[in-house]
Amino acid sequence: MKIANVEFHYLADDVIRDIGDGSQDALLVHVTMDDGIEGWGECEAAPLVSIAAWCCPMSHLACKPLQASVLGFEINEPKDIYALSDVVRRNSFDLLQADHTLSGIDIALWDMLGHKFGEPVWKLLGYRRAFPKVAYASQLFGDTPQQTYEKAVRSRKDGFRAAKFGWGPFGLGTVEEDCQHIAAAREGLGPDLALMVDAGTVWKDDVSRAQAVVPKLLECNVVWLEEPFASGALKAYAELAATPGCERLLAAGEGSHNPDMAYNLMDFGRLAFIQIDTGRIGGISSAKQVADYASQTGTTYVNHTFTTSLALSASIQPFAGLEDSRWCEFPVESAPPSRLLTKIRILPDANGEVILPDAPGLGVEINLETIARYGRKVEIHYEDKTIWSAK
Amino acid sequence: MKIANVEFHYLADDVIRDIGDGSQDALLVHVTMDDGIEGWGECEAAPLVSIAAWCCPMSHLACKPLQASVLGFEINEPKDIYALSDVVRRNSFDLLQADHTLSGIDIALWDMLGHKFGEPVWKLLGYRRAFPKVAYASQLFGDTPQQTYEKAVRSRKDGFRAAKFGWGPFGLGTVEEDCQHIAAAREGLGPDLALMVDAGTVWKDDVSRAQAVVPKLLECNVVWLEEPFASGALKAYAELAATPGCERLLAAGEGSHNPDMAYNLMDFGRLAFIQIDTGRIGGISSAKQVADYASQTGTTYVNHTFTTSLALSASIQPFAGLEDSRWCEFPVESAPPSRLLTKIRILPDANGEVILPDAPGLGVEINLETIARYGRKVEIHYEDKTIWSAK
Repeated sequence: MKIANVEFHYLADDVIRDIGDGSQDALLVHVTMDDGIEGWGECEAAPLVSIAAWCCPMSHLACKPLQASVLGFEINEPKDIYALSDVVRRNSFDLLQADHTLSGIDIALWDMLGHKFGEPVWKLLGYRRAFPKVAYASQLFGDTPQQTYEKAVRSRKDGFRAAKFGWGPFGLGTVEEDCQHIAAAREGLGPDLALMVDAGTVWKDDVSRAQAVVPKLLECNVVWLEEPFASGALKAYAELAATPGCERLLAAGEGSHNPDMAYNLMDFGRLAFIQIDTGRIGGISSAKQVADYASQTGTTYVNHTFTTSLALSASIQPFAGLEDSRWCEFPVESAPPSRLLTKIRILPDANGEVILPDAPGLGVEINLETIARYGRKVEIHYEDKTIWSAK
Repeated sequence: MKIANVEFHYLADDVIRDIGDGSQDALLVHVTMDDGIEGWGECEAAPLVSIAAWCCPMSHLACKPLQASVLGFEINEPKDIYALSDVVRRNSFDLLQADHTLSGIDIALWDMLGHKFGEPVWKLLGYRRAFPKVAYASQLFGDTPQQTYEKAVRSRKDGFRAAKFGWGPFGLGTVEEDCQHIAAAREGLGPDLALMVDAGTVWKDDVSRAQAVVPKLLECNVVWLEEPFASGALKAYAELAATPGCERLLAAGEGSHNPDMAYNLMDFGRLAFIQIDTGRIGGISSAKQVADYASQTGTTYVNHTFTTSLALSASIQPFAGLEDSRWCEFPVESAPPSRLLTKIRILPDANGEVILPDAPGLGVEINLETIARYGRKVEIHYEDKTIWSAK
């Protein structure tokens, strides 16, 4: 069967706030095959730009819009989706945004194939079982240590077994202020819950600034320090990883927009945890390649996700069968367009664990009313032609 | 003085052909300061998508359109342009296409500052002298070895001292066919001209396929083998670089869209030549950082460019003062919108060398008639607003 149509739905909250909350908008992808089978996917970040990457005019042989590679492509089994990734990357490798657009299409195709075969995606990926993952409540630091403490208390009361705090004021002020936030998070969670800290690339490549918070991270028994540096600062990661106490502490990878970037973080950056956003790395196909490599190299795979239940399901499928990779990012502060996208949300159970639905495809059902309510109209014209028009 | 206005001009040839020729379109950037001083820059590849990155709605704190960071930013001296790069990368780091858009803006700001101070950009960058660079005629392989031979003869007759052949059929067929093309290029150039070969990432990460052509490359005295693998395939580069005869043979880097990617190719990929496209890496500021690093680490810096004289000038400025980095890419098959952009083209002299103009800024003057002739109209609407409209 061939890809007959690809629709993009740009969802956005009524007001977008200037905070580190990626759930305020979403770009949904709806793929329809020529025999009518459908699938849904989601691209991470900058919806309008990713739509432009779909419909823009060709620049040259290796800078084509995604529609040139995708429409009409034959997909009958998993290997065909991997093959499409290769074709898109060859045809669009000078089009930087292409990886984001590809991500949502790839996810939708796996969902579609799951519906065709009546199997969850993780089975199509070759896993026999989807292991429960321990959800960590992923949230922003408070503006003050007191607020961070209160958020941590809330996560404990909500039944989470782990929580991650990131962004906000962290890393922007003094080392002492960072330490107060870390201590407040630990105090609020109590001694038994797992705590992760996300520096959001704030120190760029400044190894000594990162090293300054390490004693407090170790004292507070932090599971990982996430993104102390920019995604590509491999030397800085390697140097921090060689610091005593940091050998199994570093996490990063969400910025990877192709598998090579993730491999390099593992091979040369010496990460203990590789974090992959399925909506950015090129979809489930690329994420599964990273998961395979991680399990070969003894790196723990973690999903990165901050938006919808659809994105959450897609982000877990690639490592569903890896028993040793047990942590799962779970966004707890999602804005309405993300929170309301699916008819039923995937939520942690009484054990604080997320279990993927044993249902065809991604196992989620889209709430079309949410698309109608939060869908935004985009039109793009080139010369005398309307090359994109949709709500 | 503050950045008052940024215009983008999308130029495209009347017909865009499906060949590896990036000169068929161009995205020009025209920056005007609040005191009226102006500058011009150029972004590499996918003009419409880069425009979208300028004007799209904000997704969140770290996924803002470029206009949010750029408009109103104060620029009085070189360090301010570097500072703007940092701000854009922080505010837009989840917006993948941002690096391309930033590139053209950064170039335009250096041009503007050169006009303000009456100095060429390379002087503002701290160089005392702009060394002549040996131009290599950069072109596609012929469809047949005979055509490659004829192109090589033409380059020799045109007075070039070096020529590079890339893309076309190279690497897609048999090893024997590749070797025929390499031999044909050498035969056409004669024994004295320098020959470079560009594989255009065709082997992805297949080290043994690349190794198969190495004996012929060495036999034909090839200066470098460019991009045998994908930009990020660091392990494959390192492995090929360790192959006997390849220690000083590998070139890559044009895909780098930030300095870290280039540093990683040098540190971990063991390149002998680092090739930077100023229109993609983030502009002259980012390219200069890579040039500094290259000269520290004994790597030869080479510009990557394939479009206009403006892009050519911008691509040479960052390494103008590095005497040991003497090669300069010079596109010889440019399509009309690129060939006609400037009133006077920068061309190799009788020695086959390119010398940067000792004139303010980039030293080129835009031909506004070319913009009028090849400019393409783009309009982008979001909800009820026109967020971009320009020819």
